[in-house]
Amino acid sequence: MRLALYEPDIPQNAGTLMRTAACLGAGVEVIGPAGFDMTDRALRRAGLDYLAHVAIGRHESFAAFESWRRALEPRPRLVLLSAHATASYLDFRFAPDDILLLGRESAGVPETVRQVADAALRIPIRTGLRSLNVAIAGAIVLAEALRQTGGPPRGFPASL
Amino acid sequence: MRLALYEPDIPQNAGTLMRTAACLGAGVEVIGPAGFDMTDRALRRAGLDYLAHVAIGRHESFAAFESWRRALEPRPRLVLLSAHATASYLDFRFAPDDILLLGRESAGVPETVRQVADAALRIPIRTGLRSLNVAIAGAIVLAEALRQTGGPPRGFPASL
Repeated sequence: MRLALYEPDIPQNAGTLMRTAACLGAGVEVIGPAGFDMTDRALRRAGLDYLAHVAIGRHESFAAFESWRRALEPRPRLVLLSAHATASYLDFRFAPDDILLLGRESAGVPETVRQVADAALRIPIRTGLRSLNVAIAGAIVLAEALRQTGGPPRGFPASL
Repeated sequence: MRLALYEPDIPQNAGTLMRTAACLGAGVEVIGPAGFDMTDRALRRAGLDYLAHVAIGRHESFAAFESWRRALEPRPRLVLLSAHATASYLDFRFAPDDILLLGRESAGVPETVRQVADAALRIPIRTGLRSLNVAIAGAIVLAEALRQTGGPPRGFPASL
């Protein structure tokens, strides 16, 4: 299981997601351009020493990320998490090699990216409220995907 | 379903948890003394305008919180989330009125509080790593508890 961060703009959220991925045994793909780099103070404060324990792939652009993904055998699905999706993550059947794509905190992902995704899922929230924090949303769906697929965190360390 | 924050010391985490609770339709109990109040800048930055949409109860001390909880009919269970627990949250059967107790980011809860809890649960993480961020852990377990009990966020607004 992997998280993919689309053009992340808030380093605290990226650091928190990397710590979460480290703990839960997931990889992280960073799709650039990002608003910060791995030396960013806020990212390192949120990620602490967990950043050394997560496999991070970097991609210059969404096109580069897609080239990488499409070359993988078997090709992993791209599963977009979006407040604008209609399907609930609770009704989705995850696969162990799914890539969970998170948009920017403010703007999500552009329509061109949305159209490439194999599925688009939302976390149902109360009517009238906008959205969960992106790191919270990513953690909730990652934990559910791992629960369904029986992958880490049930036991052993992930390979890095 | 409710989150209870034991002597919270990091306002960003409290704000993020309050936003999460607002979105998912859970209440929040703050057990003092806290290291900040509701006017804290970092708390309000993390909680944004969601703070107006969450029912927050305040308790001067753990003893005061316990007096409040024990007076409720039926008495809700106190379910501690702790990196030191042995049981996984995935093996626990949640009830709709459970109170999910989160300790301090650094120190968790003292032994006296641990002994009062009806259950203690952990989120399994990779060997050798310490813990998830407390807001992330709270969100993961809250989402699982709501999934199991079919409460919000499936549809309607929670009453406040």
